[in-house]
Amino acid sequence: VNGRRRKHWGWGFEDQQPAIEQLREAAGPLAAHLGPLLGSRDGDRFGLGEVEGPVALEAVALTPPRIEVPPALAEICASDPHTRARHALGSSYADVVSGFRGHFAHPPDFVAKPRHEADLEALVEWCSGQRVAAIPYGGGTSVVGGVTPDVDPARYNGAVSIDMSGLDRVLEVDSVSRAALIQAGATGPGLESQLREHGLTLRHFPQSFEFSTLGGWIATRAAGHFATGPTHIEDFVESVRAITPTGPWESRRLPGSGAGISPDRVLAGSEGILGVITRAWVRVQPRPPHRAAASVRFARFEDGVDCVRALSQSGLQPANCRLIDPLEARMTMAGDGSCALLLLGFESTDRPVADLLDRALEICAEHRSAPDDRVVAGARSGARAGGRGASQAAGDEAVSSWRGAFLGAPYLRDAMVAMGVLSETFETAITWDRFTALHERVTGAVRDAIDAQARPEARGAGFVTCRFTHVYSDGPAPYFTVVAPALRGEEVEQWRAIKRAAADAVIAAGATITHHHAVGRDHRPWYDQQRPEQFARMLHGAKAALDPSRIMNPGVLIGPTT
Amino acid sequence: VNGRRRKHWGWGFEDQQPAIEQLREAAGPLAAHLGPLLGSRDGDRFGLGEVEGPVALEAVALTPPRIEVPPALAEICASDPHTRARHALGSSYADVVSGFRGHFAHPPDFVAKPRHEADLEALVEWCSGQRVAAIPYGGGTSVVGGVTPDVDPARYNGAVSIDMSGLDRVLEVDSVSRAALIQAGATGPGLESQLREHGLTLRHFPQSFEFSTLGGWIATRAAGHFATGPTHIEDFVESVRAITPTGPWESRRLPGSGAGISPDRVLAGSEGILGVITRAWVRVQPRPPHRAAASVRFARFEDGVDCVRALSQSGLQPANCRLIDPLEARMTMAGDGSCALLLLGFESTDRPVADLLDRALEICAEHRSAPDDRVVAGARSGARAGGRGASQAAGDEAVSSWRGAFLGAPYLRDAMVAMGVLSETFETAITWDRFTALHERVTGAVRDAIDAQARPEARGAGFVTCRFTHVYSDGPAPYFTVVAPALRGEEVEQWRAIKRAAADAVIAAGATITHHHAVGRDHRPWYDQQRPEQFARMLHGAKAALDPSRIMNPGVLIGPTT
Repeated sequence: VNGRRRKHWGWGFEDQQPAIEQLREAAGPLAAHLGPLLGSRDGDRFGLGEVEGPVALEAVALTPPRIEVPPALAEICASDPHTRARHALGSSYADVVSGFRGHFAHPPDFVAKPRHEADLEALVEWCSGQRVAAIPYGGGTSVVGGVTPDVDPARYNGAVSIDMSGLDRVLEVDSVSRAALIQAGATGPGLESQLREHGLTLRHFPQSFEFSTLGGWIATRAAGHFATGPTHIEDFVESVRAITPTGPWESRRLPGSGAGISPDRVLAGSEGILGVITRAWVRVQPRPPHRAAASVRFARFEDGVDCVRALSQSGLQPANCRLIDPLEARMTMAGDGSCALLLLGFESTDRPVADLLDRALEICAEHRSAPDDRVVAGARSGARAGGRGASQAAGDEAVSSWRGAFLGAPYLRDAMVAMGVLSETFETAITWDRFTALHERVTGAVRDAIDAQARPEARGAGFVTCRFTHVYSDGPAPYFTVVAPALRGEEVEQWRAIKRAAADAVIAAGATITHHHAVGRDHRPWYDQQRPEQFARMLHGAKAALDPSRIMNPGVLIGPTT
Repeated sequence: VNGRRRKHWGWGFEDQQPAIEQLREAAGPLAAHLGPLLGSRDGDRFGLGEVEGPVALEAVALTPPRIEVPPALAEICASDPHTRARHALGSSYADVVSGFRGHFAHPPDFVAKPRHEADLEALVEWCSGQRVAAIPYGGGTSVVGGVTPDVDPARYNGAVSIDMSGLDRVLEVDSVSRAALIQAGATGPGLESQLREHGLTLRHFPQSFEFSTLGGWIATRAAGHFATGPTHIEDFVESVRAITPTGPWESRRLPGSGAGISPDRVLAGSEGILGVITRAWVRVQPRPPHRAAASVRFARFEDGVDCVRALSQSGLQPANCRLIDPLEARMTMAGDGSCALLLLGFESTDRPVADLLDRALEICAEHRSAPDDRVVAGARSGARAGGRGASQAAGDEAVSSWRGAFLGAPYLRDAMVAMGVLSETFETAITWDRFTALHERVTGAVRDAIDAQARPEARGAGFVTCRFTHVYSDGPAPYFTVVAPALRGEEVEQWRAIKRAAADAVIAAGATITHHHAVGRDHRPWYDQQRPEQFARMLHGAKAALDPSRIMNPGVLIGPTT
């Protein structure tokens, strides 16, 4: 990994950047796949397949730094163009397309990479004294503007991005209690490879897993890919340590406590405005050897929704319970578009789970109403069950096809940007009684917004898909994907209009502006409508006490004044 | 219930107060049971069985109110002696013995009972303007001084207890999403009887269930009697509404959200210092028809501990997983004192759970090392399983004996006060790797403290028992019970010395000062050592923003200044 640099725009490392020729080669099949989906029209009409290249870093003109690196911190600071560009944007569609086109509107003046907490404390103290904004940066995977150093020049003399990648170690493992003390800058693969030496795993797999960090997960209340049970990072946290501008904050390491408001639950979701998380004790576990999975087709999405509601209220707690609507199944090549797909999975460290899957499939059978509905594949495996079941070779295809798409999505999006396809995702949560109304409202509003933006020949050419990423007994977390021909050169404005329509609809339907993508800067206008007014008042008071100079990630969660 | 008054001291209603003759009759057997436990000596030596009566309310001299009821609020306010005495104390041993002896050091000047939020808003506004402390009061079951109007006379002109019992309705039920909107003053039995009409239940059963309220549960992060899985009230909460001195606070009703810090998790555990919780949407469920239970004996407590650790890490999620040490088993008549007892139970709304119990018993078998270890009884029931198993009549005895003791404990304690037995309980949580050291340290410190207080003839006569009330994959929540001959007339000082020794040991061992009893006023000195300093700073800022006159439950959680 040493010396390997991230792309200055988009996902992955520089050496993973496909040459434009390779992109052109891949664009044909992708255009052929997407074209018919985009209103069943010929993709060529929207220019799909015409691949552009990103603006090279050498051609990017960054605004010069407004402040000098303080000599005492010179060793940990960098202000070369790659470092500044890399830390200027997160990973939303707008960020990726901006980087692709060489637009880095708000680069940090410099990037600091603390080697230990003393570095961090010195940095934060310097920022407080100089009125320089301090922006914590984990993997830069925010899709809500959470790491963008876009701060009010009237209030701040500059902005520093605090890159936590130097603090990436698993410091301690307690195998008896199954917990580990891990530094905040550890990425998903980084901490998993260190835990593997102890036969343990955190099993927290957000889509950003490859680059996002423990500290970022806690600061944004990240959700892993398990549909039920412990899947939110805060469910795994025993204690958190953070550096605030007024001093360190560290909670006791405890399996549970009822002593006042949970300090950990205050740092969880604080998105860097109270301090920088430096490490946490988290619950870990052995890798579960027992698994069983199947996928079920529903001709009607609504039947799938009712079925998932029944499953969520059954107490079966499937690890995977993803309902994917017909269009999304087709888009991800997990289905042909005629049916909704339910991916079901169970796992256990202790015992075979085939009986749980069988019971879940019974519930599914009660909710199938069309002749097309059926179990596509069931797969079982497990040490105790005596190896892989006979059906596995044939089965599991839909599941693995979908999983590949899930993890590859950020890479695919870069390619789509290059070939002129807008792709945006947003997610929410709502109680079951209001889901149908939300779904209609949101998909309708987004389709209208796509068309309102579209060039005449592209009207009706975008689409919106929906899946459930997480389900609770009282409601689902629906995740929406928007794909449309991009207005080349005007993608950010186009994205903004679609985003606005989606967010307005989500808020009007009574749902949350985000289930696990966080608030950042992009969701602020809607978050401000959602959170209790008195809560914002409380948060201002809390921030004023911990960060009197208001240097910590300004603009995120709350404004400069009450 | 109308017109039925609570006892002015202790647990239950006035009509449940046993006559002194009845107490004398009961005292004999109780003394005979406890005597041998108290150092295997004759109970008579400590005066056990010599029953005193409580000081009658008519003989109690309360300090006169320092403030007048404001005319605008006269309709909802009362200041008669019963009402003031009833709201002067909570339900700790010190509270009960104080009330028994007619000592009500800090009665509220008056008690207000809001009929609706407008009453509450007017009251809080008046308190803010008059610098009168406002003490939220649910069922008065705090065992940590959380409802005691003990406020600094230099800072406050008086104190009002806000009795929430008038707001006790289930306002709305959403059967589709399985959730209900319930007013904060609803007690356990009150809300359960209203939910029963809809075939639903909250299934939150803290020991204080009979009198404690939804608002009190949320404000103190109460834990129900289920050992694993959702058992903390905050796990059931969809949204909370509260009245703060600067305005109402209401979160969106959502099954999950990642939008910033959870507002509900800030009110949970706020113990009335930010505002008064008025209602909440909570998750409910049908009554689970499928159950299976068994009890297992372990000759060595340590084997039981190891077994429970394995169970907690198995993912089996038993509803009941209470390990009771030999002495506690004997004290509660669930065992003969030769063995530790593990009460195991599973339940499901969806399917039979006998297989889960079988698997749990396999794990138990792996941890039995002494010939005395065995499964005492297994009981199964369930609609699908075809009724009650053959073993049930014989079995379940230990379980039901223990459960009776659990729910009857507060009544029993009143009797013990009358007969001169001190009984104190405290609880904590710690990771598995540190449990043994904690257990040794705490039991040793408490035994020493009992002896240091005891009259010479009673040295060695007290005892400390331990059970696990809740277990997590990373550690247990041990619950300790202390029983000792009371120093009659000096019980509060005696209690305070024991409490101090226990709390010092808990904190020194790295555990939490409370797992589910809250902080209140009594735990403050140790809580102050436990919570992060920066968290306290944050909380001061938060409180200053919401409650600038600092009238809300002063003295709880934080001091008057940073």
